[in-house]
Formats: sequence, structure tokens, C-alpha cells
Amino acid sequence: MISLYTWGTPNGKKISIMLEELGVPYEVKTVDITRDEQFDKAFLEISPNNKIPAIVDHETGQSVFESGAILLYLAEKYGKFLPEQGAARYEVMQWLMFQMGGFGPMLGQAHHFMRYAPQSIDYAIERYRVESKRLYGVLNTRLGKSRFAGGEDYSIADIALFPWAARHDWHGIDLASYPNVARWYAEVAARPAVERGMAVPAA
Amino acid sequence: MISLYTWGTPNGKKISIMLEELGVPYEVKTVDITRDEQFDKAFLEISPNNKIPAIVDHETGQSVFESGAILLYLAEKYGKFLPEQGAARYEVMQWLMFQMGGFGPMLGQAHHFMRYAPQSIDYAIERYRVESKRLYGVLNTRLGKSRFAGGEDYSIADIALFPWAARHDWHGIDLASYPNVARWYAEVAARPAVERGMAVPAA
Repeated sequence: MISLYTWGTPNGKKISIMLEELGVPYEVKTVDITRDEQFDKAFLEISPNNKIPAIVDHETGQSVFESGAILLYLAEKYGKFLPEQGAARYEVMQWLMFQMGGFGPMLGQAHHFMRYAPQSIDYAIERYRVESKRLYGVLNTRLGKSRFAGGEDYSIADIALFPWAARHDWHGIDLASYPNVARWYAEVAARPAVERGMAVPAA
Repeated sequence: MISLYTWGTPNGKKISIMLEELGVPYEVKTVDITRDEQFDKAFLEISPNNKIPAIVDHETGQSVFESGAILLYLAEKYGKFLPEQGAARYEVMQWLMFQMGGFGPMLGQAHHFMRYAPQSIDYAIERYRVESKRLYGVLNTRLGKSRFAGGEDYSIADIALFPWAARHDWHGIDLASYPNVARWYAEVAARPAVERGMAVPAA
């Protein structure tokens, strides 16, 4: 049994999708970030960066935080969605890292300045709008060359990218302008495990 | 022989430090981002996100982009600075991801608004100042519990974090306020390979 500490954010949904894809039994522990529950002392023990998602694997006693590390942990534990070696492994790794370092942090800044900031700051909105478009352009070029982000097979790179791409309207992106992303998005969205994972935690 | 495409940025220096630590022969190919050389077509083939660093490993023909993926590639190829399995492996992974997703992207935003933006925007400067302090606080707590970021052994987590921490004055951080980080910083900085790697590319 795995305990998943999560909330309804793209980083949280990466892990519920992964667990659904693996078909592994897990329980959902919601950490309501609108009530600052990520600062609870018990949660801090598991997630020292005060962020969801985090997991505790009761089979091994291992706790892991940071969505990218959790995806690697689960992929390696179950031998799925990440090639064990060779060029294909690092194809997946580099697109996973593209998500962790850019297609996530920068889209998150776009969300902040476009939706949440108490003042509208044109310079910052424009900065993150331009960067969001650039990131979708990079992904679109990639998906013009391969079926999935990490190569011909569905992988943890797709699982990491999808929940962020699912918020494309939040960062002002029209998928029609990125046809390869749109094609990939439809294929990933149609996976039953993705549909189930995206619905965690239940509203 | 490995070709390292790099420039004098924290993400570039991660890889020169790693290669120096491994003692692997490599050649440095500078990509001058002040002259937009990262947009050259030949470089785009290697690094579709138009960013340094990237490597080509001429032994295997593999090219890898994204600093986090390159660190994993090299660590797994040479069997160093990342435990092969078990809890220790994911300790390192989570702190590597903490760097890739936060202690890097967010410090980079601090640099932008504190040093480069053509206008001084108080709201954005404060946002990234607060987040920089928070990230150093998380790292400081961690380094109060273990000698290195990923555990008792020096790892790719330290190699990823160090070149960003080396710019602490750029993001308005006084290491004296984070004594565990300061202790770790001094220990890592004193490693001869780190000193050599930080000097790449030559000015």
C-alpha cells in the first residue's frame, strides 16, 4: 500500500496518474494547500520542501517527495514507463527534466501573474506568456518527431507533462496552434488511467 | 571523449563539475548565449530546448540535454555519485529534483527581476526574494540533518545545488543566515574538482 499526499494541482496529478497506470493500491491523503496544511509538522517530516505530492510506500518504509523523484521511484520499483538502460532511458529522462525544470515552474509563474497576483503587471505577464509559448513550441517540435514525449512509447515524461498541459487555458495557450501537442494531448487524455488519475483527489 | 556544450551559467557548471569529479576526458564547446548561439541549427539538433548544457558522448553516440538528465546519465554510466538502488538512491533523487524544480528555476527568476529586468518591479522582486529565502531555509534544515544534500555521501544532488548556491549574492542571500548551508558550501567549494569545474568555460 502506498499513501499519496496530494492536492488538485498538476504536480499532484502526475502521481495519481502514475499509480493508476501501474494499478498499484494506494490511499489518498489530501493536503489542503488553501488551508496551509502543507506546513503541518507531520507532513514536513515526509516533505521537507512543504509541497505536495509526497508518498509513503508502506511496503518498504520509503517516503519520497518531489514529483519527479516519485515518478522515478515508482518507474524503477515496478519496471514500467522508463526503459532500464540505453539511449531510450535518457530520451525519457531529458523530457522528464524539461518538464521539471521548465514546463512546470515557468507555467506556474504564468498562472501566478495571469490569475493570482493582486496586481496586474504587464511586464511579468508578457515574460511568462512568451516563455509558455516557447515551451509549447519546443514540445510541439518534439512531438512532430515522435509519438510520445520520451520516444515511441508512453513514459513518465508524458505523465509529468500531461497535467500541466491540461491547464493550457490558464497560461493562455490555444492547443490548435500546436497541432502535434494537440494530437498527443488527445491520445494521452483518452487513457482510462489518465482519466482516473486526473480526478484525484475527488472534489 | 565527451563534448560539453556549455556557457558560464550555474546549469552549465553542474556538468563541468561532474566531469571533473569523474575524471573523464571532455572537450568544451562554448555556446555564447549573449550572442544567441543557442539558437544555431546545429545546436538545436542536440538541445531542442535551446539551452545549455548539453553533451555528446562520442563513445556511445548519445546526446543528452537538460542538466538533470546529463547528471543522471553520467552517474549511471560511471556508477558514481548516485547509489544504484535502495532508499539512498531516492534520497539523492529527491534533492536533485528539489534543485531542478525549485532551487534553480526560482533563483533564476530572482536574478531576472533583481538584476536584468529593464524595469524595477517591487512585487516581483519581493516574490522571488521570499521564495529564495524559503528555499535556502529548506536546504538549511536538510543540511542540519545530513552532511550532504542527498545524505552522508557527496552526490549529484550537491553537484546540482552548488553552482546555484555559488550565486547567493545574486539572489540577495547572506549565507551567514543559513549556517548549515554555509558549512556545506565551504566543504563542497574546497573540492579540487569543484574548483576546476567552476572555472569552465575559461573566461
